[in-house]
Amino acid sequence: MHSFSQNVLLFVLYGLCAFAAASYGVATGLIRARDLGVPFEGTPGELNAITDVRGVEVGQTTLVEGEGRLVVGKGPVRTGVTAILPLGKDNLNRAVPAAVFSFNGNGELTGSAWVEESGFLEGPVLLTNTHSVGVARDAVVEWGTRKFPDSANFSLPVVGETWDGELNDIGGFHVKKEDVFAALDGATSGPVVEGNVGGGTGMRAFGFKAGIGTASRILAKGADGLCVGVLVQANFGRRDNLIVSGVPVGQEIGDLQPLIHRGSEKEGSILVVIATNAPVLPHQLKRIAKRAALGVARTGAVSTNSSGDLFLAFSTAVPVLVDGRQQWSTLENDDLDPLLASTVQATEEAIINALVAAQTMRGINGNTFYALPHERLREVLRKYNRLLER
Amino acid sequence: MHSFSQNVLLFVLYGLCAFAAASYGVATGLIRARDLGVPFEGTPGELNAITDVRGVEVGQTTLVEGEGRLVVGKGPVRTGVTAILPLGKDNLNRAVPAAVFSFNGNGELTGSAWVEESGFLEGPVLLTNTHSVGVARDAVVEWGTRKFPDSANFSLPVVGETWDGELNDIGGFHVKKEDVFAALDGATSGPVVEGNVGGGTGMRAFGFKAGIGTASRILAKGADGLCVGVLVQANFGRRDNLIVSGVPVGQEIGDLQPLIHRGSEKEGSILVVIATNAPVLPHQLKRIAKRAALGVARTGAVSTNSSGDLFLAFSTAVPVLVDGRQQWSTLENDDLDPLLASTVQATEEAIINALVAAQTMRGINGNTFYALPHERLREVLRKYNRLLER
Amino acid sequence: MHSFSQNVLLFVLYGLCAFAAASYGVATGLIRARDLGVPFEGTPGELNAITDVRGVEVGQTTLVEGEGRLVVGKGPVRTGVTAILPLGKDNLNRAVPAAVFSFNGNGELTGSAWVEESGFLEGPVLLTNTHSVGVARDAVVEWGTRKFPDSANFSLPVVGETWDGELNDIGGFHVKKEDVFAALDGATSGPVVEGNVGGGTGMRAFGFKAGIGTASRILAKGADGLCVGVLVQANFGRRDNLIVSGVPVGQEIGDLQPLIHRGSEKEGSILVVIATNAPVLPHQLKRIAKRAALGVARTGAVSTNSSGDLFLAFSTAVPVLVDGRQQWSTLENDDLDPLLASTVQATEEAIINALVAAQTMRGINGNTFYALPHERLREVLRKYNRLLER
Amino acid sequence: MHSFSQNVLLFVLYGLCAFAAASYGVATGLIRARDLGVPFEGTPGELNAITDVRGVEVGQTTLVEGEGRLVVGKGPVRTGVTAILPLGKDNLNRAVPAAVFSFNGNGELTGSAWVEESGFLEGPVLLTNTHSVGVARDAVVEWGTRKFPDSANFSLPVVGETWDGELNDIGGFHVKKEDVFAALDGATSGPVVEGNVGGGTGMRAFGFKAGIGTASRILAKGADGLCVGVLVQANFGRRDNLIVSGVPVGQEIGDLQPLIHRGSEKEGSILVVIATNAPVLPHQLKRIAKRAALGVARTGAVSTNSSGDLFLAFSTAVPVLVDGRQQWSTLENDDLDPLLASTVQATEEAIINALVAAQTMRGINGNTFYALPHERLREVLRKYNRLLER
Repeated sequence: MHSFSQNVLLFVLYGLCAFAAASYGVATGLIRARDLGVPFEGTPGELNAITDVRGVEVGQTTLVEGEGRLVVGKGPVRTGVTAILPLGKDNLNRAVPAAVFSFNGNGELTGSAWVEESGFLEGPVLLTNTHSVGVARDAVVEWGTRKFPDSANFSLPVVGETWDGELNDIGGFHVKKEDVFAALDGATSGPVVEGNVGGGTGMRAFGFKAGIGTASRILAKGADGLCVGVLVQANFGRRDNLIVSGVPVGQEIGDLQPLIHRGSEKEGSILVVIATNAPVLPHQLKRIAKRAALGVARTGAVSTNSSGDLFLAFSTAVPVLVDGRQQWSTLENDDLDPLLASTVQATEEAIINALVAAQTMRGINGNTFYALPHERLREVLRKYNRLLER
Repeated sequence: MHSFSQNVLLFVLYGLCAFAAASYGVATGLIRARDLGVPFEGTPGELNAITDVRGVEVGQTTLVEGEGRLVVGKGPVRTGVTAILPLGKDNLNRAVPAAVFSFNGNGELTGSAWVEESGFLEGPVLLTNTHSVGVARDAVVEWGTRKFPDSANFSLPVVGETWDGELNDIGGFHVKKEDVFAALDGATSGPVVEGNVGGGTGMRAFGFKAGIGTASRILAKGADGLCVGVLVQANFGRRDNLIVSGVPVGQEIGDLQPLIHRGSEKEGSILVVIATNAPVLPHQLKRIAKRAALGVARTGAVSTNSSGDLFLAFSTAVPVLVDGRQQWSTLENDDLDPLLASTVQATEEAIINALVAAQTMRGINGNTFYALPHERLREVLRKYNRLLER
Repeated sequence: MHSFSQNVLLFVLYGLCAFAAASYGVATGLIRARDLGVPFEGTPGELNAITDVRGVEVGQTTLVEGEGRLVVGKGPVRTGVTAILPLGKDNLNRAVPAAVFSFNGNGELTGSAWVEESGFLEGPVLLTNTHSVGVARDAVVEWGTRKFPDSANFSLPVVGETWDGELNDIGGFHVKKEDVFAALDGATSGPVVEGNVGGGTGMRAFGFKAGIGTASRILAKGADGLCVGVLVQANFGRRDNLIVSGVPVGQEIGDLQPLIHRGSEKEGSILVVIATNAPVLPHQLKRIAKRAALGVARTGAVSTNSSGDLFLAFSTAVPVLVDGRQQWSTLENDDLDPLLASTVQATEEAIINALVAAQTMRGINGNTFYALPHERLREVLRKYNRLLER
Repeated sequence: MHSFSQNVLLFVLYGLCAFAAASYGVATGLIRARDLGVPFEGTPGELNAITDVRGVEVGQTTLVEGEGRLVVGKGPVRTGVTAILPLGKDNLNRAVPAAVFSFNGNGELTGSAWVEESGFLEGPVLLTNTHSVGVARDAVVEWGTRKFPDSANFSLPVVGETWDGELNDIGGFHVKKEDVFAALDGATSGPVVEGNVGGGTGMRAFGFKAGIGTASRILAKGADGLCVGVLVQANFGRRDNLIVSGVPVGQEIGDLQPLIHRGSEKEGSILVVIATNAPVLPHQLKRIAKRAALGVARTGAVSTNSSGDLFLAFSTAVPVLVDGRQQWSTLENDDLDPLLASTVQATEEAIINALVAAQTMRGINGNTFYALPHERLREVLRKYNRLLER
């Protein structure tokens, strides 16, 4: 295809990331890993969410309907869409520096070729189920070209997926373009709901119910005001591999295995979206995207053949256009280390947050994935002297 | 997402490629570049088409409707879908060795991450317009899972695109899932119609009308029975760059420029699909896919920023599964050269065939792309002593 | 350059990996991580070394000379060369399937372009210090072409490096071609000496002395007789990041910091070489090579900007040449998971083995890196209930 | 390895590229393709050489000694070293934005991993014969650390190679570190000698004698003062494939085949180094580097298995360091097209220049490669109406 112009931003949007004075998770009313005393490295931002990166908005459409036996096209429905807007709804026609990395490409992330080639992400990032990538993709085209008729930034949308077919009537194609519009139109800054919501509605990880998770990091000293936010759609890993903060939780909690009445459980995938306000170049963002793999590794997963482990990183520090030239003011490679470390840490925590927030769900054919039991998680951490007692 | 099994073929399908005794292009009734005396290197197969590779089937749905002023959602419509089935409709649940290569990623080729990771193409390859990638993708999921309910080969479909928005109401989303089903169900071996058909309906190249083109090569001695077939969706290039068999045709034919009543012409993209019956490994297919760039170069294009130049190569020589192991019998790297040369040659010819076959088309707002004039092409070739006189 | 032929093996060499009946580490007389009660996942082979993969030979030349103040060209010398011969000295002209992966490319691994392109490793893999890559590379050419005059397999040797300039007179270029010849000629199967030897002589990791480490895994059920062996040259990581089997050892042992009298300590690099007898294709070996990153992650490192984290994987299951075609009998992608998991596990253990085996070393200007103290390591593991008591 | 700092430039060096008023090739006294009436697209700079990019210096050491039968270690010697210094000798400790691309990786380009990862080229680029990569690499380390003792920019040198073993005693390792020092120390701006010089001394292409070639382009309107310079070490291609400006010269001149008394001629490789003063980012330089493949394609080559086709692009428009941030003022992606086109054109011309400049050479065992005969080249161009008559 061709593009008319990349329409880069004429001013820099990024600001500071406030240090968190309050506890985390209050805003959504949901329990988060830190609330349970799970120890993590680094300092989270105010919301401990991807939305700590100023400008980033998240919108989610959750579709839950029906119970009982699977009738393809009827349900039960356990799915949805999560939309991440790098600069918010009003600046979505502005491209942001970005990069993608496929650690194990058993998945889809449309738009990757152009992100890789151009160094920019044009438009939002959508996360949904495997069978709904197409409808979500075309819906972004329609939504974007309607909202920004003069922009060519919506021709190659970025849509990722993981497989929710163990709980959801995935072959029923229940995500409609209106659901995608709703996620986009409803996107907000502020706290991000985790667990059984949006694209994560029907997802599971390590044999527990999982879904959407998020976390953030304020960068270490020498990087004032810079932060990293991560959002994951977690649907991967085998029970016995689960590690939480170094502790072999999966081996300690061997029960509460999924009820799968038809078919067998297979390992799925994990999508990781990384946002930062740090001023970095596209090739540096690829380095950041790669670090998501290290965060995933800390949760014990080995990225199996069937896992689609695709990562995307973007920066809200967009170049300024002056006299037809893009003006950048970027970090030296030697100054990237705090960004790399923060990405590893926030990815790890976002995954554990997804597990902690998700609640037991019964889906098609009565298939059931159980929530990670909070008290038992604390017991196991205590056994290994890793629980942060209040 | 996860996959259940790659479902590799239990027997080898590939056969010989017949040498062509007859003239080319007769079957479809259309004029082809060789008919005009354009000289090319190498020996084409019987059909001089991708379908010379036994097993390959091509189906095309062409949508042409309405005239006059663009009314988004109403038309005029100048678009379609081209489907390539590596092993035909009945073996579409069988994965074939494959690889992708992005020379300039201003385009979309869904499914690429899994082809790259797994080394296999599962299911068909679809080519359509930029805004219809999603509907085509989800339609393949639906069609495939309905036709092969036990196969997991249809979760990450491969769909490519180029931009036909200068002739087509691309924002009207006129490709429907039924159009995709029709292309898949109607796929056949035999001659391939070129020009204004299928995904190529509204496409143009070098300022002339273009679209679908195809060509093939019987491999040079020492590679008995092996062949390469190429199919392109050509929508790229600037007029003054057009070279045909070494001759600067674009500089010699400066008139017959497009009529664009709204907007301006931009350079588009080229998709190249390469099929071979040669037994090669996925990493060798990547080497083959890369050679499409050299064929493109021979037509004068420089692969501009706005060009989505994405290539996919697959082999119909699938491994045999014995005792749980894949049995391969493959070419050594040192024996690849005839394959590489044939890919370059067939890509070049397929592009010129697309230009020669396409006919003048008027689309939205009366925008018009003219056909490459056959007699003047011959004159220019004669001027540079390159015309093959009968 | 050109090559004459890849000279692939005419028969398959690989055999079973014996299960270990005895304790590990006895053969070399050195203490290994398991001897201290460090828990690891998975089942190691007999030697718990890369040489558990039959055919693999390792040779090491260790250069230690002089004390005191650095005089460039004079010393002190703390460096060496480690050679890995995939099929042993006598079959070194036979190419083995291979792949490379750069997780953070602040390093050198010559020959990578041809491994990536061809899918084969021709000749040995050499590990040395950063400034001696060239001499090692040319020495392999000379050694190989002298030993196998009819082979073209020695034109693009594979040589990797990490930086030992804090202990070694790296600017003195003390590695000579004869040292490289000695490592090659002295290569043997059997136990591999770890720590301050070969290319690892002057290396350090996480602020402790480190160097060469190795480990292996017998694959899980369903993969009878298959194994993975890993060898690392470990020279990376910051103290406070060090994790051993999930336990934050680096934060618990904050003293014994390096004495650096001139210059400051910087994070270095890690080279990982993975061998397997599993029959896999080059693109599958790339998937295996990537998993080294997950093993590195388990030791707490975040792969900083200055870290050259380069991985190479090869298989001793070489294709058989019959009638000019390579005959392969390979694992399906779905069967790779035990290989992937084993690679993660063996990489993690090889790194910890390097730390455990290395002994305190004083080098140039009296700079000193201390050994990881074994008893304190055990204490920390005990504190976190992770020590395997006898 | 680790690096201390990238030592980026504190000021911008690049300037205008003067339009050429005079004829080309005068300075070196050698005939160039344009002198013969070969037509090329685009406008060359003053020198039609890589040194038209201000700051770039080239130094070459040519080693020719002995005649007759090959005695390994004695000769005959037909080899050398070519050094390209992006910002000249005095600024060689300053990193320049850069990228690499391997079109067919049957070759070596050391340092590639770090160029790819960091986005910068630190130090010079060296071109030599296949067996001398190591000595050249270590020599750059020694030369650089001696000249710039405080810089860490010389630990991962960039050295490429092609194979001159048909004319040169390549197994005799005749390139010594002093020869490399001489090339570096002798580097100058100004005209570049082509043909049988430096790393190109013993090289051949399309069955004719070849070697070093260079060309440049002043960018098209809208890109005032920007230029591209290319230098190739050409050692590739089969006679019958040779195309000059679209004309099948190789098929027209079938005689003057190489005399090879021992062994057989194999296709070799081509190294392409692209310099520009255009302000572009590393990921954009990768796009530029890829275009070298299109220039190569225009000369008729298909990049065979045995061809090491490795490309490197760098920009002399280095970022300015202000308050610890790199300040860039770069081209938008939409403005890259003239750069891409110029790269294709200059690559093509540099290859033809190498063929035109090279003179018949007899090497080991009397093996002889003949010069492309100038008058016959003109005749063939005239036959196809492509000769530019004076």
